[in-house]
Amino acid sequence: MAMRSMRKARGCWSFIRALHKGPEAAQTPQVSEHTQLSWILTCMVRLPRLQHLHQWKVKIATQKHGGTVGLLTYPVLQAADILLYKSTHVPVGEDQVQHMELVQDLAREFNKKYGEFFPVPRSILTSLKKVKSLRDPSAKMSKSDPDKLATVRITDSPEEIVQKFRKAVTDFTSEVTYEPARRPGVSNLVAIHAAVAGLRVEEALQLSAGVDTGRYKLLVADAVIQRFAPIKREIEKLKTDRGHLEKVLQVGSAKAKELARPVCQEVKKLVGFL
Amino acid sequence: MAMRSMRKARGCWSFIRALHKGPEAAQTPQVSEHTQLSWILTCMVRLPRLQHLHQWKVKIATQKHGGTVGLLTYPVLQAADILLYKSTHVPVGEDQVQHMELVQDLAREFNKKYGEFFPVPRSILTSLKKVKSLRDPSAKMSKSDPDKLATVRITDSPEEIVQKFRKAVTDFTSEVTYEPARRPGVSNLVAIHAAVAGLRVEEALQLSAGVDTGRYKLLVADAVIQRFAPIKREIEKLKTDRGHLEKVLQVGSAKAKELARPVCQEVKKLVGFL
Repeated sequence: MAMRSMRKARGCWSFIRALHKGPEAAQTPQVSEHTQLSWILTCMVRLPRLQHLHQWKVKIATQKHGGTVGLLTYPVLQAADILLYKSTHVPVGEDQVQHMELVQDLAREFNKKYGEFFPVPRSILTSLKKVKSLRDPSAKMSKSDPDKLATVRITDSPEEIVQKFRKAVTDFTSEVTYEPARRPGVSNLVAIHAAVAGLRVEEALQLSAGVDTGRYKLLVADAVIQRFAPIKREIEKLKTDRGHLEKVLQVGSAKAKELARPVCQEVKKLVGFL
Repeated sequence: MAMRSMRKARGCWSFIRALHKGPEAAQTPQVSEHTQLSWILTCMVRLPRLQHLHQWKVKIATQKHGGTVGLLTYPVLQAADILLYKSTHVPVGEDQVQHMELVQDLAREFNKKYGEFFPVPRSILTSLKKVKSLRDPSAKMSKSDPDKLATVRITDSPEEIVQKFRKAVTDFTSEVTYEPARRPGVSNLVAIHAAVAGLRVEEALQLSAGVDTGRYKLLVADAVIQRFAPIKREIEKLKTDRGHLEKVLQVGSAKAKELARPVCQEVKKLVGFL
């Protein structure tokens, strides 16, 4: 449980957002300024503010003994991740908009109290708002879903991807349409199709004209396989060169540290720690 | 508010416990391992565990907008302060016993999950369990009490100390007795008297035989002044030598860092961060 909270990735775009992720995620614990700023921000937020965040409410509803405090305060650590680099724009999925509002509030509150310091960062919303689970289109696709068929990973084999889309939950209508509220399952397939093929939803629908949902699943699976193939190859290549990966981590960590340290020092000075 | 949570000292023994405090309190933010370990421990504790801690409940009952998350998670930071040095014994007041239980639980849980690593630290209770407010003997004496007369400080002048004890809330009985439940005000004076004079409660009572509470207050004030005088002189002397104090902080910080770093590294390795 503890490790799950600690490692939990920011979003649940298991297979597309990963593209945007640099080595920062893995190396965060090496830049100790993150937890330091996080502690300071934690002292500026009240408990109900975090308890009302949607993702926390969803998580504790499904966990037997309630969530850990790490899960509760994770959005504050995210805020530190962002503010520590005086970020101005953050690309996020729709599910992270509420967390970005927290970041913005924290930046504003800090500036109000200690003088203009942090830029108030803005969300950049990707066109595909949210990828839904293939097994339960009312839930988002999540790396931590216990149902292996719910989530597609970049590293899945083509056979696995085909199988997952083949078993994707849709409904009893065989036509392909985009009606997220009424037909969430098939609409999720259309959204994924459009995203991986670089199309607008209307264009994806045109391509599916006359195709029933059964065949459409294979078409989407194929588009996903095509999109992932070069990334998957690159991942496999990189995985064979551990030395190179460690070097990337080291260089990235040093660069991050260099940016983070003076900001953290300045924050400490402003709040009166130094 | 934020600063208050951040700086909030561990206990409320404003005038006796300070004796036991080294420079660690002030320099904590310099040893970044504290917030790092704190984050890891935060991922091992569930929200209700912290919400049920007595001090949190008391604090939020008196705060208009609820407490900050920093205040809620402060006991976890305390746990990191203790475990980071593999401490085996911690001198605490009675009000901290519940927080020490949290520390012990966290140490045990960590050991269970990752193998025997942290000693489970034991509380050393001081004989004077709890110093009560001079203005409201149902509450503990606290540095953050808005009523200036409630709390005696080592740095108070003898005149201030006399005035605070003179105005101490007692009851309508003039005899001096030790009955904490029935007569909390006067019993608090007896407890303070015994503590500062190095006496047992019975001995303090013997010294007050035939003295009414009004005169007893002055007797206790005098004992406190006597006890504080050499410490106050030392504080005043130290305050004139800023260079020396900074040196002490630096040396202490370097020493703490040296102890904390390998423990923190080992923890990261155990939980899978490295």
